[in-house]
Amino acid sequence: MTTLDPRGDLVALTRAVCDIPSVSGDETALADLVEAALRTADHLEVLRDGDAVVARTQLGRPSRVVVAGHLDTVPVADNLPTRLEDGWLWGRGTVDMLGGVAVALALAVQLENPTRDVTWVFYDHEEVEAELNGLGRLVRTHPDWLACDFAVLGEPSNGGIEGGCNGTMRAEVRLHGVAAHSARAWVGVNAIHAAGEVLRRLEAYEPRSVEVDGLVYRESLNAVLVSGGTATNVIPDRCVVTVNYRFAPSTDVAGAEQHLRELFDGFELVVTDAAPGARPGLDHPAAAEFARAVLAVTGGAPAPKYGWTDVARFSALGIPAVNFGPGDPLLAHKDDERCPVDQITSSYAALRTWLTS
Amino acid sequence: MTTLDPRGDLVALTRAVCDIPSVSGDETALADLVEAALRTADHLEVLRDGDAVVARTQLGRPSRVVVAGHLDTVPVADNLPTRLEDGWLWGRGTVDMLGGVAVALALAVQLENPTRDVTWVFYDHEEVEAELNGLGRLVRTHPDWLACDFAVLGEPSNGGIEGGCNGTMRAEVRLHGVAAHSARAWVGVNAIHAAGEVLRRLEAYEPRSVEVDGLVYRESLNAVLVSGGTATNVIPDRCVVTVNYRFAPSTDVAGAEQHLRELFDGFELVVTDAAPGARPGLDHPAAAEFARAVLAVTGGAPAPKYGWTDVARFSALGIPAVNFGPGDPLLAHKDDERCPVDQITSSYAALRTWLTS
Repeated sequence: MTTLDPRGDLVALTRAVCDIPSVSGDETALADLVEAALRTADHLEVLRDGDAVVARTQLGRPSRVVVAGHLDTVPVADNLPTRLEDGWLWGRGTVDMLGGVAVALALAVQLENPTRDVTWVFYDHEEVEAELNGLGRLVRTHPDWLACDFAVLGEPSNGGIEGGCNGTMRAEVRLHGVAAHSARAWVGVNAIHAAGEVLRRLEAYEPRSVEVDGLVYRESLNAVLVSGGTATNVIPDRCVVTVNYRFAPSTDVAGAEQHLRELFDGFELVVTDAAPGARPGLDHPAAAEFARAVLAVTGGAPAPKYGWTDVARFSALGIPAVNFGPGDPLLAHKDDERCPVDQITSSYAALRTWLTS
Repeated sequence: MTTLDPRGDLVALTRAVCDIPSVSGDETALADLVEAALRTADHLEVLRDGDAVVARTQLGRPSRVVVAGHLDTVPVADNLPTRLEDGWLWGRGTVDMLGGVAVALALAVQLENPTRDVTWVFYDHEEVEAELNGLGRLVRTHPDWLACDFAVLGEPSNGGIEGGCNGTMRAEVRLHGVAAHSARAWVGVNAIHAAGEVLRRLEAYEPRSVEVDGLVYRESLNAVLVSGGTATNVIPDRCVVTVNYRFAPSTDVAGAEQHLRELFDGFELVVTDAAPGARPGLDHPAAAEFARAVLAVTGGAPAPKYGWTDVARFSALGIPAVNFGPGDPLLAHKDDERCPVDQITSSYAALRTWLTS
């Protein structure tokens, strides 16, 4: 039977973690091996919920941090087992996010005496529907397991800190007209033509860039769907433009809706979906020290995260959280997913520095 | 068994024709009765093809005209049997177009000695797919039955002449972009936003009014469908605006396409469907005499027809043709379909004047 050796070579450990298939819903084999590896460390209390494994120190330190990562990947695309080539580790999961999992697993076992209490969280079902998300399940079933002052989520961020995330809102701008036979078009009112003004405002819209806790968040507002008309001989009486607004974490959901209502003044607007962003929380002392450690080891300054990630789940608990892990997020989920080996080792070094200084 | 009496009261005949259900595909009962009524007239040669019935004089006149009408209706909407109320005949088919059929049937039997040879055409399957159309079938199987100098189609036209019809063209304006995750919208190019310029040109477009053979045709150009986007978190790389152009019969299909290509210069445009219009042909002597007869009897001057009708089938054969029948076309297919009785009698009088003077 395979075992994982968190005390040995880090790249070998990363490859071993990636080479165990763990597509969402099928994480048990990897979760079992992670649990077994963690149980070899006497300084850790190990807990399990489904395929989520939690290990924590109980050193009585004045502050506690969480380091979390998901065990599941998107489906394999003939890109396993991993291969090492010219300093890159190729294969499913190397970026999203088993590189970050390997780094955490190594440090969890190796750091017997960290300067902060640490809760290491490995969870399931991140790549699928939100209601299955393993971290979300722990929030509901064992919120005490996640108690901390600051959290690091090992999502790929090119080995630098990507803080917080933008919020997201979807809304429908609904246009109305009067149907008529298109042979007598002048009897009707064309709802699709009315959408021209909506698209005009979107085209003219200049997205803001907003500084939050020292990071600059770039917003965006886009039409993502448009649909109108019933038949090719009928003047359409209905057209819907669905917009997606990504807003800085300094704006709440109500503020985002207000902004859209002002922009589309005069049109019917219905919000269909919204999730708040997450502030980076880099003004928190533990976060600031982490940022200094990363800067010292990798030379990288914190940057904003644009995509919505599970850091928002910590944010919703009032816990500042950042993304920090090896790999370029633009290569996640791709068939040619690959991670620079030096980002795996520098991520390890930066976390180690932070947790031991 | 019911019989039709084309020599008796015209309104009673119209009611009898309407009260025999003849929804498309179920015209046989009515076609049989029409054939039987026509066969009572010795001056007529009666022909049959499926549920199309043709009757013609063979008087050796220097010109021949066709008077045609379809026997089928759209489905009954609890609006049969007919009822007569305050000068209106209510019920399915009274407008579209069994009023016209009754007028033609009466005149076919009554006029033993018309001043022109007349071919009376009663056909099936007008209200359904074009390939089933009974007149189209006669064009393919018995084109000689339709030979004439001028044709009158008894479609509802408020008892006045509606000449020719606009052509129609459908085309897709296809917009292209670059897909991206909507959290990093600036990496992509939004194809829906690009459609804004297409809608702007449509909104600014001023449709022409074109005089053809003395009638003024009002054109129109409209977006009838719009569709774009794949998911609410993706910057759309594709959007399609389907437009419907109704163009005057002085423009051919190639000219209509050229006009659209100039208007949407810079965009991909694909023509998906087109049918030419039909000139009213009112400069033809038989047509001009018909127009004079109608003007004398009803006071109505010829007007353009906007919707595409089977007159275009005659036009495609090189035969000028007009619509002339009782009833308001805007009431066709409606649950409250109803026809003014005086339009039935005045249509009869005008046709009789033309064919006997």
